[in-house]
Amino acid sequence: MTRATPVSVNHRRKPARRDSRTEADSGGRPIGVFDSGIGGLTVLKALVELLPGENFVYLGDTARTPYGNKSTEVITRYSRENAEFLLAKGIKLLVVACNTSSAVALDAIASDTAVPVIGVIEPGAQAAAEVSAKGRIGVIGTEATIASGIYTRILKRLRPDAEIYTRACPLLVPLVEEGWTDNEVARRTVEHYLAGLKDSGIDTLLLGCTHYPMLRGLIQQVMGSAVRVVDSAAATARVVRASLARFKLLRSARHGEQVFFVTEMPERFTRVGRRFFGPEVESAVRIER
Amino acid sequence: MTRATPVSVNHRRKPARRDSRTEADSGGRPIGVFDSGIGGLTVLKALVELLPGENFVYLGDTARTPYGNKSTEVITRYSRENAEFLLAKGIKLLVVACNTSSAVALDAIASDTAVPVIGVIEPGAQAAAEVSAKGRIGVIGTEATIASGIYTRILKRLRPDAEIYTRACPLLVPLVEEGWTDNEVARRTVEHYLAGLKDSGIDTLLLGCTHYPMLRGLIQQVMGSAVRVVDSAAATARVVRASLARFKLLRSARHGEQVFFVTEMPERFTRVGRRFFGPEVESAVRIER
Repeated sequence: MTRATPVSVNHRRKPARRDSRTEADSGGRPIGVFDSGIGGLTVLKALVELLPGENFVYLGDTARTPYGNKSTEVITRYSRENAEFLLAKGIKLLVVACNTSSAVALDAIASDTAVPVIGVIEPGAQAAAEVSAKGRIGVIGTEATIASGIYTRILKRLRPDAEIYTRACPLLVPLVEEGWTDNEVARRTVEHYLAGLKDSGIDTLLLGCTHYPMLRGLIQQVMGSAVRVVDSAAATARVVRASLARFKLLRSARHGEQVFFVTEMPERFTRVGRRFFGPEVESAVRIER
Repeated sequence: MTRATPVSVNHRRKPARRDSRTEADSGGRPIGVFDSGIGGLTVLKALVELLPGENFVYLGDTARTPYGNKSTEVITRYSRENAEFLLAKGIKLLVVACNTSSAVALDAIASDTAVPVIGVIEPGAQAAAEVSAKGRIGVIGTEATIASGIYTRILKRLRPDAEIYTRACPLLVPLVEEGWTDNEVARRTVEHYLAGLKDSGIDTLLLGCTHYPMLRGLIQQVMGSAVRVVDSAAATARVVRASLARFKLLRSARHGEQVFFVTEMPERFTRVGRRFFGPEVESAVRIER
């Protein structure tokens, strides 16, 4: 395993034995986070900010990214494999930091899993439902996420008076991965995708893909300052903290560590990952898939 | 199996038994063609135009597309699996209609295979070396293809006086798959990628990815009429015909059929595939991967 940040082990009770499900101090076990690739690092960043004492194991399925243009069946199979890898690391809670997996495979993952499983859809929808003044909410995401209809269903449940407008934006993930987040191509692509939503008079736009926070500045500019742009990362972190507190699983340490696993191209992951997360993404371990 | 065009079986000797390696009329066996997804259909189109009497089995690995940002090891593994699937269909010749696979995995595929294996790199390089007046040749392709350096090596071998300029263009594949081949985003993306090549004063530009012929009009406009834009599809078809003739494997029929297999999302394949190939892409069979 690689250590991406200075390690600070919790010595208050006894030296923590990590990666063990049976240790007495179960709060010392890491939190597992997976994504189809690199986008989930925006969620990990919010988690580390809110829960700096926790240890995290992140898995990016970079060999099979993107998930957004794949079928429910295949996304579910890949998501389960990711969950199994992280469960074998002795995690105490699983965060599905991929909107596409959360949209189509969360129940399937949770049905196999003894630890709490938290996705990014419900927290994001909750945040959007709360901040929207008039209840006119736009949602953007991958083809699979938008086609699942899940955001519309959850938003209508949370806020029955809401009017929901959705748009699939397949090119935004490759744009972000190319690092084109503030050039003319990015601007015109965002304008193209958002034109219809702008005409709909939405007051809130939910970023339904973990890559999109990298384009937040541009999206906010294109939509104008009257539209609230919401992502699911901070809201998901708050749900994770509440879940850990409920199960008495919070780790009482000042610093935790993050370790990174990928299924492909660890160098590319660390290079691009630094833009998403910060310089702590020093190295990643490649696993066979 | 689906039949995408009217079937015309060769009755001159006896009813052809397809999918059989042992039949006497070995010319009746199909030609296998694979790509990481949909781009190889531009090669299949050139093959059918030049060899209308042949039967073809096409496999698009849509569940794991794109290959262009993956490692040599993973691309090789996926390519071998594709070849094995087609060989089990009793093909008489294998066309690797994916520049990325051809760039990094052709030798590995050929070493396992008893039928002739033809990639798209060498024919494309040959075509570019022949048409270039001054030997200033640009090559564009995926990250993996360009990083392999194979075009530069082959072009220097074919034409030692040549000066080769290369550029990876990761966004062009997603752009084409989104159907954005002639809008402002496509134009600016192409301009951005080609600016350096234009400044280099190339006289020939080789499209080193089977998706790029869908952007040929735009690429030609951006480069200007003095630059020859070359793709590998027609050149590959000529090499295939020569190989079949050499091994006495040409099929003497007026019409052949094409059948399509994909590893994911057959509806999407047929929808987008019609833009690449024509209305004959009526249906595709999904195989497990």
